Amino acid sequence: MRAVHFHGERDVRVEDAPRPVIEEPTDAILRVTSTAICGTDLHVYHDTAPGAEPGMILGHEFVGVVEEVGDAVREIEPGARYVAAMYTACGRCAACLGGNHRGCAAFMMFGMGPMAGDLPGGQAEYVRVPIAEMTLAPIPDALSDEDVLFVSDILSTAYSGLIAGSIRPGDSVAIVGAGPLGQLAIACAPLLGAAKVFAVDLVDERLKQAAELGAIAIDARAGDPLDAVFDETNNQGADLVIEAVGAEPSLETAFRLPRVGGRVVLLGVLVDQPFPVSAGEVFLRGLSVTAMIGNPFAYRHELIRLIEAGRLSPARIVSHTMSLDDATEAYALFDAKEATKVVLKP
Amino acid sequence: MRAVHFHGERDVRVEDAPRPVIEEPTDAILRVTSTAICGTDLHVYHDTAPGAEPGMILGHEFVGVVEEVGDAVREIEPGARYVAAMYTACGRCAACLGGNHRGCAAFMMFGMGPMAGDLPGGQAEYVRVPIAEMTLAPIPDALSDEDVLFVSDILSTAYSGLIAGSIRPGDSVAIVGAGPLGQLAIACAPLLGAAKVFAVDLVDERLKQAAELGAIAIDARAGDPLDAVFDETNNQGADLVIEAVGAEPSLETAFRLPRVGGRVVLLGVLVDQPFPVSAGEVFLRGLSVTAMIGNPFAYRHELIRLIEAGRLSPARIVSHTMSLDDATEAYALFDAKEATKVVLKP
Amino acid sequence: MRAVHFHGERDVRVEDAPRPVIEEPTDAILRVTSTAICGTDLHVYHDTAPGAEPGMILGHEFVGVVEEVGDAVREIEPGARYVAAMYTACGRCAACLGGNHRGCAAFMMFGMGPMAGDLPGGQAEYVRVPIAEMTLAPIPDALSDEDVLFVSDILSTAYSGLIAGSIRPGDSVAIVGAGPLGQLAIACAPLLGAAKVFAVDLVDERLKQAAELGAIAIDARAGDPLDAVFDETNNQGADLVIEAVGAEPSLETAFRLPRVGGRVVLLGVLVDQPFPVSAGEVFLRGLSVTAMIGNPFAYRHELIRLIEAGRLSPARIVSHTMSLDDATEAYALFDAKEATKVVLKP
Amino acid sequence: MRAVHFHGERDVRVEDAPRPVIEEPTDAILRVTSTAICGTDLHVYHDTAPGAEPGMILGHEFVGVVEEVGDAVREIEPGARYVAAMYTACGRCAACLGGNHRGCAAFMMFGMGPMAGDLPGGQAEYVRVPIAEMTLAPIPDALSDEDVLFVSDILSTAYSGLIAGSIRPGDSVAIVGAGPLGQLAIACAPLLGAAKVFAVDLVDERLKQAAELGAIAIDARAGDPLDAVFDETNNQGADLVIEAVGAEPSLETAFRLPRVGGRVVLLGVLVDQPFPVSAGEVFLRGLSVTAMIGNPFAYRHELIRLIEAGRLSPARIVSHTMSLDDATEAYALFDAKEATKVVLKP
Repeated sequence: MRAVHFHGERDVRVEDAPRPVIEEPTDAILRVTSTAICGTDLHVYHDTAPGAEPGMILGHEFVGVVEEVGDAVREIEPGARYVAAMYTACGRCAACLGGNHRGCAAFMMFGMGPMAGDLPGGQAEYVRVPIAEMTLAPIPDALSDEDVLFVSDILSTAYSGLIAGSIRPGDSVAIVGAGPLGQLAIACAPLLGAAKVFAVDLVDERLKQAAELGAIAIDARAGDPLDAVFDETNNQGADLVIEAVGAEPSLETAFRLPRVGGRVVLLGVLVDQPFPVSAGEVFLRGLSVTAMIGNPFAYRHELIRLIEAGRLSPARIVSHTMSLDDATEAYALFDAKEATKVVLKP
Repeated sequence: MRAVHFHGERDVRVEDAPRPVIEEPTDAILRVTSTAICGTDLHVYHDTAPGAEPGMILGHEFVGVVEEVGDAVREIEPGARYVAAMYTACGRCAACLGGNHRGCAAFMMFGMGPMAGDLPGGQAEYVRVPIAEMTLAPIPDALSDEDVLFVSDILSTAYSGLIAGSIRPGDSVAIVGAGPLGQLAIACAPLLGAAKVFAVDLVDERLKQAAELGAIAIDARAGDPLDAVFDETNNQGADLVIEAVGAEPSLETAFRLPRVGGRVVLLGVLVDQPFPVSAGEVFLRGLSVTAMIGNPFAYRHELIRLIEAGRLSPARIVSHTMSLDDATEAYALFDAKEATKVVLKP
Repeated sequence: MRAVHFHGERDVRVEDAPRPVIEEPTDAILRVTSTAICGTDLHVYHDTAPGAEPGMILGHEFVGVVEEVGDAVREIEPGARYVAAMYTACGRCAACLGGNHRGCAAFMMFGMGPMAGDLPGGQAEYVRVPIAEMTLAPIPDALSDEDVLFVSDILSTAYSGLIAGSIRPGDSVAIVGAGPLGQLAIACAPLLGAAKVFAVDLVDERLKQAAELGAIAIDARAGDPLDAVFDETNNQGADLVIEAVGAEPSLETAFRLPRVGGRVVLLGVLVDQPFPVSAGEVFLRGLSVTAMIGNPFAYRHELIRLIEAGRLSPARIVSHTMSLDDATEAYALFDAKEATKVVLKP
Repeated sequence: MRAVHFHGERDVRVEDAPRPVIEEPTDAILRVTSTAICGTDLHVYHDTAPGAEPGMILGHEFVGVVEEVGDAVREIEPGARYVAAMYTACGRCAACLGGNHRGCAAFMMFGMGPMAGDLPGGQAEYVRVPIAEMTLAPIPDALSDEDVLFVSDILSTAYSGLIAGSIRPGDSVAIVGAGPLGQLAIACAPLLGAAKVFAVDLVDERLKQAAELGAIAIDARAGDPLDAVFDETNNQGADLVIEAVGAEPSLETAFRLPRVGGRVVLLGVLVDQPFPVSAGEVFLRGLSVTAMIGNPFAYRHELIRLIEAGRLSPARIVSHTMSLDDATEAYALFDAKEATKVVLKP
């Protein structure tokens, strides 16, 4: 089968790989019908992701049709469509039952290499899905692949972040970074009661998209974003700030925007960036800071219900649909920020 | 001044009354600019409300301009516009600090007679507002009277009910009764994450309005409402049911609609109606039932922020705007269900 | 093997049965080391439980040593000790991930006959445990069988009930019925912050045990229990009431004790008892009523941690330890309320 | 009257001051019967507190008897005993109704100088108490001054911190610093469900007291505290860590102890200390960090109920009771850590 392989910095190639087979009785084999390139994949693409190894198959956002299941699989129907979670979890241990699926001993992330369980990714014609009854969620007939594809990761992450940030009805929420993750946070915030949503970015197209989603777009090139937030919050600052980039400048911006007693959630991947304020400042401003990985298991069912009811339209962030065979070009486009979100069709 | 007085069953009259004066140093005098007739007023109008006494001034939904304040009032500005809560509370006792403002020893309800503190109501040119700093909330300049008027009672009640019913994102919510209270519940449910909202009623006009607000309208004359709910919930029933009428038939309907493990909230005023199911049925279906009075204090600020941000438009339920002098006619119209909601202008 | 079989009203017998075998790859076979008789078993014993069938093996509270596991079981270690949940659930569907394990399509209750999945119970030398990785939780070495045995059902049920009743620190909690379930509710309430716990019963021994657990014992034969609750709550009534019997008189008592705005949780099994108050009374008193089945999955890990840390000692409710061979006598003793809780050793 | 005045670094003196009088109709005058020296007072004593001015009267933990009330005060009874909150709030604005009493425009802190509203403190024979109905809570007859004195600040702060840290039943909680604040956190954690409580300190006496309160005492001089926490948490780390000192070394220790996905709450006063870990580390470890000022208003009533019920005994941290006239010596003792907590009697 054809699959997107990582070979080194800015070097991804579509190559043949052996078609995966059932290894465990709880596995399923999924024929991938749509898969996306995620910002996290760019960390691999830049060769800055710990654990990435040449030869590995990329991809952790994907949907498809189940081809085959292991002997112990009862609730997954071959021939039906499913969306995968970006990582595996058992659903049954103390961590999972406590809602901390990321802390499950069965954790493996698709397409992230040996440090994440060495599980081949979904940017491929077929993918082996461990613990299939847990990893896969059924797709309602009325929904397209693109409607539910981002439940795998960035939609779940955006939503998880808002909830981890204790979003309350009536809140003002500032999203720093209006890329794909930020845009989905903008779309989710009103469903969780946000009164006002601010989107801070530096790219015209993203600011325009954010405004179309109902956000108050703030061009960080045009002045201090805090001024714009103050204007709309009675000079208080935002109740909740989401950092949706994972870079030093956006991190610094994020910590300028919350009101006294406000909350900051770190969703963008950080590795060794310094903490942008002192502990004294955190104390004196009474801030709460939460960093987290999204949890598709906790929220995918309500997200799918919201999409099905027409209250959420994540497919609108798709800017490019390309063949899996064109993945090399797709990565380059996405890396150059010429594409908001690319979907690959195997 | 002119004020709406209760005189007996279906007998309300606009008559002169002494203009109220400051009695306590924490009082304010409000010049009423808009006041509404509420479903609860109809209980008085039908002379079925315990404690209603001939001669009392009606009305607990009102907004206006502060004319005068007592010596201890610091945070209320004469000349500015405010919306009143339907009842008083001190904000400072154990009950209030615990969020149970209805349980405050300072509780008095406007216009409900001696059993509720004997506090003259706001269907008048002027009204004395006790504990003014607590009872009154400021109205943003950009909002009209009608935008915020229902914060006094029915908007706060609808919203309180959804929260008391533990509404969660993705829920299906059935509203039994699409009168003014039900319509505001329909409008609020999506702000708290509801995926699907059902509205059950028997009146064409109300079903039409409910559908315009985005609800799935269910005509109870056309068949068993449970069938329609089942069709849209995978034969499970609703996660949450709001009884927004306060009558035996709607109560029975309300208890038919929740899924196993679902929740029922009783918002319509009940007096002596029997409980529609046995305790055994409550147990075997795993139901939760909550009855409550709305809490304007807990939610008015977030409601006003949501209205200001354009996410909630409660003014749309106003069907008639009339002079306070025409209150007799207005009560008759409202009682005949020829008006969805009447606003009186003194 | 030997197992307790149901044969009809007040007719349970210890008889031979085929030793269970692995049927599904996710099964385990548990060698039972301790099993308890539960109040729910008495419903079967009295032949009032819907679905009970002659010949079925009873028991849904049990611990033991895993003898054998199916091919798909990875996280269960043969030779190690486990406590079972009273019913099965998959841990992976929308219901389970939403915390509603009782609503899982894989629900089967041990020893409750065909209407609950026809799953043989654990009052036996061996028992087949479906979905073993979910149904079983490991027992820390330092804990005895009796320490964790009630996690299967009544400890989890008592704890679930307090949480479903929104127990808050500082609350006064009235437990109606100081049998085994009630006593565990008494023991758990302070761990969840209860300031005062009342125990209402009619049996001297139970009142004495409740007092030893720190409750304020109220003898319902000595006067109106409401008087005693009023004395200790500033004439308000209890914040939370737990009905832990499942009978009409205790149900009536339970509804007399909450304060205005208080909460009632129905834990005792009810079948067709009438609702003890009118809907009007529920509304006017602002009550919340929740009925529920306990959830061992949601709480077993924190319960085991609390037991391990010495903060909870459920073993103290065991009044009799008998051989499984004496189960006929044990049922009679328990039914006669001569035993608080009987543990059977196969 | 006699009162403790601040005059400069390590210079506090008991001097005469004019007896306070009613200034606002909502004031009360309290005759102080007991007042404590708080760790925050030592910031003033060391002249490191911003805004401290020579001549100001210190003290924000105090109880007493109301002597006189303003014209607008209805619910405070002259002659009765009350405990004050450490700061004022109105209870009625959007901030207060949202639970953010610290954000109220009426905020003034007793005895902290011009930057905190210039409100004379309670280490005096008499103190003027603004917004008396809010600032004061009644003391049940059965409780001594010392039983409730710390509700003013450190008991409320310890309790607020545990709640802000989302403490859950079964949690392991590490308290860094077993001074008065830390000891009250140790005492409160089990009431909120903690299974295990660790206390990290360097002082023998404090470690001994922590152990007497039920904590696992960890002597930071004897090795890496993380080892001890790992030993008791299955090598996971603590679920929740409370920093109860406010100094760089303890801050560093605090950030070493949480498990992946754990929470850190900063209760010790910080001014300009650096943040002890990078943003990358916060992200990769999935930490939550919350800094906050305690909220006496939100929790004092439940704390008093828990004390009244005998579940909490904060008076045990009092090591010295001295005359107000000996305040100079008392400050020196407390500063030298020769006293755990000093109560002054005017």
